[in-house]
Amino acid sequence: MRGRFITFEGGEGCGKSTQIRLLAAKLSERGIEAVETREPGGTLLNERIRHLIKDQREEAPVDKCELLLFLAARAQLVEKVVLPALERGAWVLSDRFCDSTFAYQGYGRGLDMASVKAANGFACGGLMPDLTFLLEVDAAEAEARRKAREQALGETADRIEQAGDGFHARIRRGFDELAAAEPARIRRIDAGGTREETAERIWKSIAHLL
Amino acid sequence: MRGRFITFEGGEGCGKSTQIRLLAAKLSERGIEAVETREPGGTLLNERIRHLIKDQREEAPVDKCELLLFLAARAQLVEKVVLPALERGAWVLSDRFCDSTFAYQGYGRGLDMASVKAANGFACGGLMPDLTFLLEVDAAEAEARRKAREQALGETADRIEQAGDGFHARIRRGFDELAAAEPARIRRIDAGGTREETAERIWKSIAHLL
Repeated sequence: MRGRFITFEGGEGCGKSTQIRLLAAKLSERGIEAVETREPGGTLLNERIRHLIKDQREEAPVDKCELLLFLAARAQLVEKVVLPALERGAWVLSDRFCDSTFAYQGYGRGLDMASVKAANGFACGGLMPDLTFLLEVDAAEAEARRKAREQALGETADRIEQAGDGFHARIRRGFDELAAAEPARIRRIDAGGTREETAERIWKSIAHLL
Repeated sequence: MRGRFITFEGGEGCGKSTQIRLLAAKLSERGIEAVETREPGGTLLNERIRHLIKDQREEAPVDKCELLLFLAARAQLVEKVVLPALERGAWVLSDRFCDSTFAYQGYGRGLDMASVKAANGFACGGLMPDLTFLLEVDAAEAEARRKAREQALGETADRIEQAGDGFHARIRRGFDELAAAEPARIRRIDAGGTREETAERIWKSIAHLL
């Protein structure tokens, strides 16, 4: 049986990577192979593309270049990782996918949405997630988590995280509208409590796929 | 007055970079600023994208990823280099542009041409060359020049140059069909003689733009 393709979306600091790790562990306990990946990334080439997108010390990509770099990495990820995994029956859990493109490059950067969707459809050959979790925390909580992570890991905000408040407000509105438009695929998850509470909500939401 | 955008196309070893240099020199003698650029390339970021596309030692991009990397670099080049130069009245001479994408990724790799053209149009915001020179030499001559250059510069063929004979035959057919479809924009230039003979043919072809 073909595996399931589950994506995790939401602003910075909403806990996507933690929830992916917890879900992958639960799936493994059930004997289901879970492939974890992130965008942009997931292959050696894609991690190099990621660096070009995120790096802020050198020349920053213009908005269209940024979009096309994300989509180049997505095309590579879909063909090299996602489709082969789904075909062998594994579940693929991706930290971001097409909805981030719509929210960040469409709503956030203001690129024409019809063009963004057409280019995305080309890049991933029409592949869409079976289910998408939109993890929601309020802006202050997300900011606190982001700062804690930066301190713990010695990370500094990348070029996209540093874009101003107006940019991040447009992204939140973008995710809102995307979720409203596709309620069957995009499940809004309250991620404001403990990680275990959030994991439990996610687990209940995938019961029908097991 | 807005400058002119001239692109040079053709297979490997047809003499594009030499002819660009010669034309730029002649334009400068006339007091016209000439900006020389190449694709993928022309900016710091784009040279890094070029490396990802051409490099063969690590993970190669799949066909769609390759196309999207070329287009990412094109979006950057158009916005950062080509449009500003044209606006200040300079002429831009580009070693490859959209026709290479149609020939290599469309005809060569076999990607859907309508999708390739749509994605290209998005990347460069509809910008098309005012004039395109398609430099033509026969296959044996091109191969001999390519080998001579490799020896002289200590270069080795990159990932795209190494693709098989069938790939390069499809590209030649692609350029043929592109030139037949747009005879007003794409000028076929016999580049089989000396560099000076070819430069003279090109110079005559731009007289109406001066």
